[in-house]
This record gives sequence, C-alpha cells and structure tokens, in this order.
Amino acid sequence: MTHAEHIPSGPPASLDQARQLAAALLSERGEASGALIARQLQQTMRVLDADGRHGFQRYLASAFQPDAAALQDAATRYLADSTAAAAAALADAADPPRQEVLRRMNMAPGGTASLIAMRSEIAGRLGSEPELKLLDADLKHLFVSWFNRGFLELRRIDWQSPAAVLEKLIAYEAVHEIKGWDDLRRRLAPDRRCFAFFHPALPGEPLIFVEVALVQGLATAVPPLLVQDADQDSAGLRAAHADTAIFYSISNCQDGLRGVSFGNFLIKQVVEELQTEFPQLKRFSTLSPIPGFRRWLVQQPQSGGNEVAMLRELDREGWWHDAATCETWRPVLMRLCAQYLTRSPASGNRVDPVVRFHLGNGARLERINWLGNTADRAMAESFGIMVNYLYDHDSIERNHEAFARVGEIVRSPQVDALL
Amino acid sequence: MTHAEHIPSGPPASLDQARQLAAALLSERGEASGALIARQLQQTMRVLDADGRHGFQRYLASAFQPDAAALQDAATRYLADSTAAAAAALADAADPPRQEVLRRMNMAPGGTASLIAMRSEIAGRLGSEPELKLLDADLKHLFVSWFNRGFLELRRIDWQSPAAVLEKLIAYEAVHEIKGWDDLRRRLAPDRRCFAFFHPALPGEPLIFVEVALVQGLATAVPPLLVQDADQDSAGLRAAHADTAIFYSISNCQDGLRGVSFGNFLIKQVVEELQTEFPQLKRFSTLSPIPGFRRWLVQQPQSGGNEVAMLRELDREGWWHDAATCETWRPVLMRLCAQYLTRSPASGNRVDPVVRFHLGNGARLERINWLGNTADRAMAESFGIMVNYLYDHDSIERNHEAFARVGEIVRSPQVDALL
Amino acid sequence: MTHAEHIPSGPPASLDQARQLAAALLSERGEASGALIARQLQQTMRVLDADGRHGFQRYLASAFQPDAAALQDAATRYLADSTAAAAAALADAADPPRQEVLRRMNMAPGGTASLIAMRSEIAGRLGSEPELKLLDADLKHLFVSWFNRGFLELRRIDWQSPAAVLEKLIAYEAVHEIKGWDDLRRRLAPDRRCFAFFHPALPGEPLIFVEVALVQGLATAVPPLLVQDADQDSAGLRAAHADTAIFYSISNCQDGLRGVSFGNFLIKQVVEELQTEFPQLKRFSTLSPIPGFRRWLVQQPQSGGNEVAMLRELDREGWWHDAATCETWRPVLMRLCAQYLTRSPASGNRVDPVVRFHLGNGARLERINWLGNTADRAMAESFGIMVNYLYDHDSIERNHEAFARVGEIVRSPQVDALL
Amino acid sequence: MTHAEHIPSGPPASLDQARQLAAALLSERGEASGALIARQLQQTMRVLDADGRHGFQRYLASAFQPDAAALQDAATRYLADSTAAAAAALADAADPPRQEVLRRMNMAPGGTASLIAMRSEIAGRLGSEPELKLLDADLKHLFVSWFNRGFLELRRIDWQSPAAVLEKLIAYEAVHEIKGWDDLRRRLAPDRRCFAFFHPALPGEPLIFVEVALVQGLATAVPPLLVQDADQDSAGLRAAHADTAIFYSISNCQDGLRGVSFGNFLIKQVVEELQTEFPQLKRFSTLSPIPGFRRWLVQQPQSGGNEVAMLRELDREGWWHDAATCETWRPVLMRLCAQYLTRSPASGNRVDPVVRFHLGNGARLERINWLGNTADRAMAESFGIMVNYLYDHDSIERNHEAFARVGEIVRSPQVDALL
Ligand SMILES: [Mg+2]
Ligand SMILES: [Mg+2]
Repeated sequence: MTHAEHIPSGPPASLDQARQLAAALLSERGEASGALIARQLQQTMRVLDADGRHGFQRYLASAFQPDAAALQDAATRYLADSTAAAAAALADAADPPRQEVLRRMNMAPGGTASLIAMRSEIAGRLGSEPELKLLDADLKHLFVSWFNRGFLELRRIDWQSPAAVLEKLIAYEAVHEIKGWDDLRRRLAPDRRCFAFFHPALPGEPLIFVEVALVQGLATAVPPLLVQDADQDSAGLRAAHADTAIFYSISNCQDGLRGVSFGNFLIKQVVEELQTEFPQLKRFSTLSPIPGFRRWLVQQPQSGGNEVAMLRELDREGWWHDAATCETWRPVLMRLCAQYLTRSPASGNRVDPVVRFHLGNGARLERINWLGNTADRAMAESFGIMVNYLYDHDSIERNHEAFARVGEIVRSPQVDALL
Repeated sequence: MTHAEHIPSGPPASLDQARQLAAALLSERGEASGALIARQLQQTMRVLDADGRHGFQRYLASAFQPDAAALQDAATRYLADSTAAAAAALADAADPPRQEVLRRMNMAPGGTASLIAMRSEIAGRLGSEPELKLLDADLKHLFVSWFNRGFLELRRIDWQSPAAVLEKLIAYEAVHEIKGWDDLRRRLAPDRRCFAFFHPALPGEPLIFVEVALVQGLATAVPPLLVQDADQDSAGLRAAHADTAIFYSISNCQDGLRGVSFGNFLIKQVVEELQTEFPQLKRFSTLSPIPGFRRWLVQQPQSGGNEVAMLRELDREGWWHDAATCETWRPVLMRLCAQYLTRSPASGNRVDPVVRFHLGNGARLERINWLGNTADRAMAESFGIMVNYLYDHDSIERNHEAFARVGEIVRSPQVDALL
Repeated sequence: MTHAEHIPSGPPASLDQARQLAAALLSERGEASGALIARQLQQTMRVLDADGRHGFQRYLASAFQPDAAALQDAATRYLADSTAAAAAALADAADPPRQEVLRRMNMAPGGTASLIAMRSEIAGRLGSEPELKLLDADLKHLFVSWFNRGFLELRRIDWQSPAAVLEKLIAYEAVHEIKGWDDLRRRLAPDRRCFAFFHPALPGEPLIFVEVALVQGLATAVPPLLVQDADQDSAGLRAAHADTAIFYSISNCQDGLRGVSFGNFLIKQVVEELQTEFPQLKRFSTLSPIPGFRRWLVQQPQSGGNEVAMLRELDREGWWHDAATCETWRPVLMRLCAQYLTRSPASGNRVDPVVRFHLGNGARLERINWLGNTADRAMAESFGIMVNYLYDHDSIERNHEAFARVGEIVRSPQVDALL
Repeated sequence: MTHAEHIPSGPPASLDQARQLAAALLSERGEASGALIARQLQQTMRVLDADGRHGFQRYLASAFQPDAAALQDAATRYLADSTAAAAAALADAADPPRQEVLRRMNMAPGGTASLIAMRSEIAGRLGSEPELKLLDADLKHLFVSWFNRGFLELRRIDWQSPAAVLEKLIAYEAVHEIKGWDDLRRRLAPDRRCFAFFHPALPGEPLIFVEVALVQGLATAVPPLLVQDADQDSAGLRAAHADTAIFYSISNCQDGLRGVSFGNFLIKQVVEELQTEFPQLKRFSTLSPIPGFRRWLVQQPQSGGNEVAMLRELDREGWWHDAATCETWRPVLMRLCAQYLTRSPASGNRVDPVVRFHLGNGARLERINWLGNTADRAMAESFGIMVNYLYDHDSIERNHEAFARVGEIVRSPQVDALL
C-alpha cells in the first residue's frame, strides 16, 4: 500500500503544518521567533504518524537546496581562480540550507533527540529512496560536530544510577544480553565497572557504554565474567587484588548516531579512569567476539574432505560437549581462526569488523581463546572462539600506524605460534 | 616590528610543536589518538607567547585548505549537472579541513574555551591580515553550530551563585558598570532578576546575561533602578506587587562568540520565566541607550544657528543641572531624537544598532525618556535620553516582519506625537 | 547454649577491644580523640560475630550507669525542696552515661546506621534479657531526638531514583508485596506517587514510604491499583483527571527505629505535596487492611450456630469465588466488621492498630469494602474486607481530639448504616 | 523602661498566641497536628518584637516543668532501692517537658535556626534572669545531641562557593578581620584552604570554619599570610611545594551554639583532608593569638621598676617600630610570655583559653614568635607575640592526657629554652 492510496486526499493537516513551520524556520519569522517556531514544529512532529513522518523527511531532504545560481557562480569563480578565499566562498555557497533548517529544529527542547530519532527512522529506506541520503548525510555532519568528544561527559554507571538509565543498559546491551535486573546488578558489582558517554542535550541517554571486569590474569572466557555472585564484600576484595581490566562488552545505544565514533575515545578514557582508581592494574584487554569467522570459513574453497567433514560435525547442536570432537578439531579451527584474523587488508581482504575497530584504535591481537563463549550467537559466529585485544599504552600509536599505513595485523607471539 | 624581526632564528620550539601536533590531529595518528594529541596541543598552546599564538593562528588559517583537484572536479561536475547530489558532493569537497582540525582541537578538555579565546585574539588583526578571515569564519561557523540554542542552559544568577560566576558579571557588565560587590548584591535583590545562558563546555562562564528590575509602571530613568537599598523584605514586597519587568541591561560576555546571537533568545525565554514566576506582570520592556544619536546629530547639515547654538551649549559639563537650559532644548532634542530613531532603513539610513536589535526581535519603540540616564557615557552618546522598547507577546511576529520586510519602525502613538 | 559455654576461654579479643574502646570514648582520651576512637570502635564492631555483638550490647546496657552517690544526693535535695532548679539538677544527674557513650559512638561515619542495627538486633531479646531494655530505651530516646521531623527530608521516589533506593522499596514493602522490577515500575507510573522520608545520616535509606494512586472516585479494592499497565501516556492522562488520592500502602523500613513515629507526618506532608501538584484533587483517603478482625471474631462467644457455620465455611479455600456463599455471609460479615472497627476504646476494647493509627492522626472511618483485597494475607486477616480512612483537612483536629479524649470512632453515615 | 511600662495592657496578641501554640504542641492536638502547629508557632514568633520574644522565652523557661508528684515518687523509689531500672525511671520522670516542647518546635521548617537564635538572644540575660538558665541548658542539651559530629558535613569553601556563604566568612571571621571581597579572595587562593562544618538543617550556614595557609617551614608571623597576591598560578606552585599547613584562623559562627564544641573535630578532620590532598605535608601547626598575656602581666606584682618601666614604654603607640625598644624588651617579654603560657593549671592558675583549647586537643606548645602580629588587637592582647601549636598525629593522645590528667603544658625544647 502506498502513501497515496492510504491517504488519498493529500497530506494530513499536521504534515502540511510541519512543512509550513519548517519553511517558516528559515524565513524572516524564524529570525525573530525561531525558538518558538521550533517548539511548535517539535509538537507537530510528535503527532505525525509513520506516513506523516516519512512525508516530512522527504520534504526536508528535497525542499532546502542551496541557491543554484549562487552556487554555480561560486563554482565558476573558483575554477577561474582557485584561491583559498574563493574556496571559502564556494564552501559557503554550497552549505546546504537543509543543515540550517536542522540546526534551527534543534533549538526546541527535545530537538536533538528528535533529530536522532529521525536519522534512525530513515536508515532502513536509504537504499530504496536515495534522495533521503542527502538528509542522512546532513544529519550525520551535524551530529559529528555536536557530539564532538569535547562535549561528551564520561559517567560511571552503577547501582546508584537512576533506574531509568539502568533499564537502557538492559535494552541496549548488544554483546552479552543482560537477563533482567539481577544480571544487571552483577555487572555493576564492586569488581565490575561500567562507563558511558552522555551528551548534555540527552540527559538520561547513554550514547555508548562499556562493561569492564577487574580480574587476575587475562580472562579468556566469558562465562566466569557473567556468573552470578551476590557477595559484595568478596567482589570488593577481588577488585582490590585485580591486575587486569577486561573490556568484555561495548555497545552503541543510539542508532541515529551510527557513523559517529565514540568507541575509541571511550576505551581510552576508561583506561585512564581505571588506572587512577586502581594503580595496581597492569593490563587492559578486551574479550571480544569474531563476528565474521564462520561466514568466511564456509566461503573458503575447501582444501580437502577434512574441512568439509569438520564443518558438518560442527553443525551439530552441542558438539562442544563432546571431548573427542573438541580434541580433533580444536587445532584445525584455532589455526584457521588465526589465519582469518591476521589476513592483511593490503591483499584486498575484508578485515573482520572487530579486528578493524581494535587494531584501528592501536590495540594488538593478543590471544585466541578456544570456547571462550558458548552462547548461541558466539557458537554460530565463531564456533565459540573469542579474542583478546590488548591496549598497551606505550605501543598504541605504533600499532595504529602499522595497521593504518601498511595493514599490518600487530599480534603477540602466542598468536603467531598458531599460524 | 614583524614577527621575523622579533625572533630572527625562526619559530620557537613550542610553535613548531604546535604546528606538528595540529598536523598530526588530521593524520592517521589523529584517528587513533585524537583526544590525546588534542590534549598535548592544548598544553603546548598554553605556553605559547603572543607571537607564538599569532604564528600558530596564521598556520591554522593557511595550512588546511581543501584538496584543490578534488574541489575543482566537484565544481566542474556541478556546473555540468546541477543536481542536488552534485551540490552535496560539492559541499563535501568544499568543507575546509580547517574546520576539521578545529573540531579535533575541541576534543581536549578546555578546548572550546581556547578556540573562543583564539577568535577573540584575532579579532583585532582581521583588517591587516585578511588571510585570518578564513580562520575567523570557520570558527564562527563552528560556534554557531555548537552554541545552538538547543545546547544552551538558562540559569538564574543570584546571591546563591558561586563567587566565581558573580565576579564575571562585574567584569562583563557592558551597559551600567557594576561598582563592586555591594552594587552587585543590589542587582540581585529580591525585586531584581538576572539570567544568563551557559554552555555545558564552559561550565562557569556566562555567555550573555540580562538584568531585570521588577517595578510598578514603565521605568523611564536608570538611577532609581541602580539605587542601593539593603532592605531585602521590602524588595520582596516590591517584586510581589510589580506589574512591569524592565530589562535594563544586557551584556555579551564572550568576545570570541561575536556574531553568534543569543540576545533575542535570552530576552524571550526570560519573559517566559518571569511570566511563570510572576503571573501578575503585564508589561515587559527595556530601558535602553541610543548609542548613535549624538554622532548622527552632529553630522547633520544644521538647518540654522539654533541647533549650532544648542550643540555648543550641550557641550558644557553638567548642563542638565540647569533648568532653563533643559526647558529650552528638551522639545528640540526630543523631536530630533524621535526623528533619528524612526528613520527608515529603506531610505538607506543606518539604523541605530539598538533599534535594529530590538525591532529585529519584534519589539516596538515605546517611549523616549528625557534625561533617562545622566551617567557620562549616556550623556555623551545621547544627551542622556533613553528609550523603552516594548516586548508585547501578541505583536512580536507582526512587528518583526514589518521591520524586516519594509523597514517600518513600529512605534507607539507617544513616539509619533514627538515627530 | 550460653555465651560462656560457647567460648569457654572468655570473650574474644575483638569483644574485649570493643569494650575498651567504648570505655575510652567516655574517658579523657575520648575528649581529645573521640571521633578517632568512635571510628575504631565502629570497625571493631564490624568484625564481631553475633555472640560478640550480644556481649557488647550487654556491656553497653550495664557498664554506663549514672553516678549513684550523685544521683542519690540530687534526689534527696529535690525531695527537700522541689524547685525547678533542683528538678533540672536531678535530671542532669539522672542522664545516663549510656546515652553519652551512644552519642559518641554516633560520631563515626556509619555510626547512626550501626546504632539502628543494634536496636533492631536486641529487639528479640528484650523479653528474656530485661537489662537490655535500658539500652533499648536510651537508643529510642536518642533516635526520637535525632530523627525529629525537622531533620527529615521528604523525597519523591520515581523511576529516576537510584536502583539502590528502589530495591529497598521492594525489600521493605510490608502491605502489598512488590513482585520484582516490573511491578515496581507500575507503582512509579505517572498516575502513581511514592514518597519517603530520608535522614541526612542515612543517605540512601528510606525511613518510611507511602504509595499513592491517583484515581477517579474512592478506590474500594486493591487489584485495580496493582494491575500492570505499561502505557505511560494514558497513565499521565489518568493523573491529570484524578480527583482522589488513595494511600494504598505505607511501610516502615527501619526496624531499629520502631516507636519513632513518622507515618502521621508523612501522610500529611504528602497530602500537601499532592495538593500542590494536582490542585484538582478533592479527596485523600487510604485503602487499608484490618489486621485484627478475624482474630477478634473467632474469639467472640458465638451467639448461635449461624456464626459457627459461617466461620467453618469461610475456612474453605477460595470460598469467595462462590456467589451464593458471598451472598449469604456478606451482610453478616460486614455488620460484624463494622462492629469490630467501631468498638470504643473507652469500654476497654483493644482497638485495631490500623484504626488506632489513622483515627489517632485525625482521619475518619469512611467506608468498609467487601472483598477489597483477595490476597492471601487479607483473606486470612479480614476475609478480604478493606477499609477507607478519609483525611479531610478541615476535620482532622476535631476527629483526633474526639478519638483521643473520649475514644469516639469518628465515622461516615455509610459505616453507621452497617451497624 | 520595663516591659510592663512599655505595654501596660498585658502581652500583645501574638505573644499570647505563641504561648497557646507552644502549649498546644504538647497537648493532644500536638500529637495529631504537631508539624502544623510548629509551623504556626514559627510564623507567630517571627512577628514578635524583642519584648514579645523575651516574654515567650520566659514562658518556655517556666511553664514546662516535670510533674512534681511523679518526680518525687521516682526520687523516693530510687532512694529506697538504687537499681539501674529505678535510675532509668527517675531519669524519665526528670526529663523536662521543656525539652519536648523545644523538640516539637524544631519540627517546623526553619525551626532549628530559630532555636539557635533564641539561645543567642538569651545569652546576655542569663546573669540577671537566672530562671532562663534552665531554658539555656535545655537548648544546649538538645544542640549537643543534634549537632553530633556524626551529623556534621565538612565542606571546603572556595571561590566556587555561593556568595551567600562567602559573605558569612567575612561577617564571622573572629581572628583576622576580612577586609572585603578582595581580601577574602586571597584567603581562598590556591595556596590557601578554608573548611567549614555544616549541618543539614542549616544549609547555607557555616557552624565553624578554619583558614589554612600552605607554606614552606613554620610560619611565625601573620602579615605574610594575609598579603595580597593576585597570581593564581604561582599560588598553585606554592601549594605544590608546601611542607607545612598553618591553621591561622578558626572562627565559630553561631553564638547560639556556644559550648557545643566543633573546633577539635574540625582541626583533626582538616588535617586528614590536607594530608590526602597534599601527601608531602610534614607539619600541621597553628599560628595563634595569646588573648590573656597582657592582662595577666599587668596584674602581676611587679618585681622591680624594670617591668613597670617596660609596661609604660610598651603603652606608646607604635613602640615596635623602634629597634632599640624592641632589643631591650624582647628577651624580657619573651621569657614572661613563656612563663605565662606554661603555668600549670594544677597550681590553680587560669590557663590562657587558647592554650587550653589546643593542648586539650592534644597539640603541643611549639614556638613563641616575637612580633608575630602587629595588628591592633594582637598588640593590645600580647604585645604582638604569637604562638605555634603543633598537631603531631603520633603524640596527640599522649599530649592530651598529660595536659588533662596532670596539667602538664607539653612544649618544645625551644619554648623550654625561653624559660
Ligand atoms: Mg558545517
Ligand atoms: Mg536527652
């Protein structure tokens, strides 16, 4: 059913009103009464249904183009004489009024949240309606500027945090599902830390959060990190004796902010916070999934019947409970996994997104862990194998450059030994 | 003396380091360790002397140009086919790397404050070093986006505010000098209100503030508003019985944010706050100076010896203490002032900046007050004449449009009667 | 098993140390270093086991008696000449050093909480160890003074409250069990209010809290108040249209503060808060249990076979699902219940504690509700009958005095009609 | 003029009303509506004039006596059998209803502040109206309990503190007058610290505050500590390099809390705070006045003409500017001062109150400083001589006991050398 069939008599009153208010925002009226009009528009948008919002998004994407004559003029001048001033004049002429109308919409209370919701909503239609891409790009341009690291606030989240914030952790946790409030409480125990970035315009809304376990030695498997343990005092003791911080989960919360990167900043500031609170910590590492391993493996031209047989066996539910199966395939899978993780992007390989993220941040591939996580998703993605990425302060820049410039997958001798 | 003469042996180490760090911010390293580099740059900038800062500003203004080939290409494509997509691609190519480097500088703690200080510092050199204008424009572009109304917080300032904030009122008050803490206290008494906008990245720094007196009837002169009166209880009573709010002073605090407009938003939100706290208020008006009146008057071709004589007499110190002088010239001056204030911009006249601000906000010219302020500056600017601009909720949009479209100086019958 | 049998070789080191520290608190050392010693004692107490705590409590109860000679002297003087000054001197001499040692123990961080825990712990032994009653009375005397209404802070509890506070609601709710976080969330929805008293020395610890439902008309049954309803918007609408606030649960949280009354103050301040937030509220009423009805009824000499039969039938599980049974016994039970509730204390009757509380606060008995609550406890206590007590601002003092002076059970005509 | 002459026709309506409300507070009505009546009483007291307040204070002091029959009975029983239970019953009977009425007055918002103001007001009349002493003692008894160390909050005061708090420092500074806001700012500079105790019931009211200078070596004179120095950065450096904290001023703020001791606790907790913030601090000392030295000296039977001559010379204005005079009298005065300060209380001497305070806290007499303060008051009190008292963590308890038990004036060898 198309929009036209649904509402045959044209756009409903509120969509019409939203359009008029958006136009007014950029007009003379908008200069005198911008904040007021932005508020009215905000209220009008709130009563739009999905079709109305869709219509309004298309309107925003198409109605606020730069002045073509002026832009052509500036382009011509720049081509005639490519000075810095001409470039600046051209940038000025090209700056889309779409961005200005979005900036003015942001003036209303709740404006930022509603722009983020808009970008989230159009995400699914970018393929079928390419004209929305301009709106998407403008929103992203503004969000990159507004959600600059300098405007973010790192806050610890613990059992003293408002329930309204905590329930968002439960909702947004993307890596290891939080199974209700008791599970959440364990993740906020004295030997755990959770930190999130917040933005002043979205007061109770975490943008991204990371969960950290304070342990002794490198944690190589997930279950011990998630196990319930109600004893606060012994958890406090464990924290006091920990030498390693394990970042075992990092989750983005706002789909509308996709492409605005927070993760790198978050990990690095949390390392600093933890080092201050626990000077005895010696090691900062993740325990991370390998989302692309199985997909890659099944797409490989299989060298022999051996691997075909293996893949068939590993399709069986609960194969990992069988010691013989494990013994047989573990060395094969571990080697293949090490190969997968260390393929150089320079050779045109698609690097696993988690590798790309952490090595791009300057971490190194530290350890590959057999059956590090037997939860369904991890079994499906990577046969339960998990990876530690190590954040070592002194080699972060070097690692990053090696990865970024020549595509080197910086790794420990332990990983090399698997190859 | 040029910079080169002053430090013949080339830029000092810290300027060099600042340049390298700024370049690094945009490089690969900047992606892995942007926040860290931004912090180092921040520290390096702090030790630069005036020459070093100047050199760094010139570097920022010139070193981060858009890629000329790419921009020429995008310009050519747009001229060939002026689609929305081509316009967006052109805007992208034109977006100056200068802005990106400034955005990354902002990631450091204190980054926003130091960018504002930079723009303040280059203000005086824009005339002699036009290349700095590009840096100035980029800073302004970012500030307009970052200091969006949606990110500002209105806060009441009173005697419970931190001394560190209050001393800034004393420092920044631009209209009626605050003569120390006792004077300040009076301006924060129960029959006064002071509101300011703050930005989360500048926690203790008011951006703009307005001082309001709660009175009965339209206040037509400044001295009664500034008179000392220690009695808190009677001030509370006056507030309870006030029917009029007089905005008698509005001051911008951050020179580096010039051109980013806050005043209109501030006045309108403060009207709302006051209406909520004091539902009995019936009138919201300013009591404002006329900075350009005398300058305009002395430049007029004088119609006769009369006005020449008047101007000579009004040059005498303290002329306003003489009743006869006042009686003679008051009608002449009041008529001339009404003429000055009501000249239409449509006829090519330069409208007084205060008229332009308030009528641009949708206020109307309500009353012209003889000897409304006998402080030195007011006597020098406008022979002590002061003006009330009335903010009437129901006519704000109409007034604004009349002024903005046809240059009509909306005014009360009282003002008309003077013409 | 006595304490001596259990640890034959005398008190363990830490009990001994606790005693010495308590003694030191009252000594010279205590004057110079009271806060320090109090902290040491606090730490020592934390490692005592139950026997050690018991021993320490007995020590506190017995070791700090007033100086007998001085007290005898003061008593003698007062008997000789009963002036106000002699009375004051006698009060001084009688003031037990136990209270002073407890006051000094309170100086340590966490001191107040640990004294409250101590009183909670000795509660069960007051019968068998009457000497502990002196300690209990001194603790209560101090708590009454420290938890004076003037030092309590009323705070609204909602979904923005810290989880650490919210979980205490779940733990302490004494009337209608909160079944986990979803149930709790419903009780904090926009058409509900929850308020608690807090004391500055127990920052995250509610002392008492009340749950309120905003409804239309007098709520006569519990289930509709507890039903889950996730829709926040319609809950907000219900709140806006409510004319009645139902106090459906009030729970004390600190057993160690028993006998220190908060409930009366809480209800009355919450009425004020609600009246301010919702000026349209016309009625403030409880929906309360009748804990003593069945117990009283079964103890009555039964007038005939009728009631014996009734009691037998009402012992059957789920009798209230049978319409005929209900029809038969409802009038009988309702009449008996009205009789139970309205018995005058003047005639030596033991008034139901809930009646005593609310009528003592000045409420009146408004309505008796058949099957107002079919939860197990309510069925067991009162055959599911519930009561509304009405708090009517204008008659509170009159009602209170009628009840307090002559034992009148102030009630509505509706209740009278049942008799 | 007596009260009776002033208002011949009996107490004014509001005094009468205050009495009735106070009586009502203890009645039945008080139990149902105590908080309400306390608020009404609070409002009534606010409109009483000085005579009315006086009348009300006398009423409070006399009208709420313990029940004589009950108290006589309890006294008789105790004399017959002096058990612990009988002592407790006697204490109960002796507990004056005055205290209960004061506790109930405290339930109103602002109640604590108004009781403190009441005690402050009656201070001057205790001599002439001994019956007020009972009220004074009851207020003090309650304040000692309510202002228990466990309920106080230590807060740092700095330039971020509200002006409303800072102006109280200016008002209350009792040792070295603060000459306006610039002087205050210097005392809050980065190489200074100011801490105060606050009580939750008096939110913006410091109870006592201490001013500390962070310096190198023992500060032996006041002027360098008070000198203006606007440079925040160098002050920060000085703090970082300080090895000594000098407590150069400690002031009680609430006259109504006299006799409730805070100073000892304050100094000791501030020592802990400073040690945490500046681990490099090695020495904590006061720089203190000697209020009683001159008074004592002039009362001594002069051994010879020598001292008579000295006292005459030292009466001359500005004698200390004369090097010869200083050279002559310095050894004599310093020896006499050392004698004054070290006289043992055991021999019946009246110990200087500042000595008593600091040695009672466990400090030792460290150093006597010639011309440590040439401000008028210090010259008048002690010829400008000042004293350092040293707080050394390891000897505090020993020092205290030596002073408290045998009146030993614990002192440094340096002081001994002067004797
Ligand atoms: Mg831009
Ligand atoms: Mg007492």
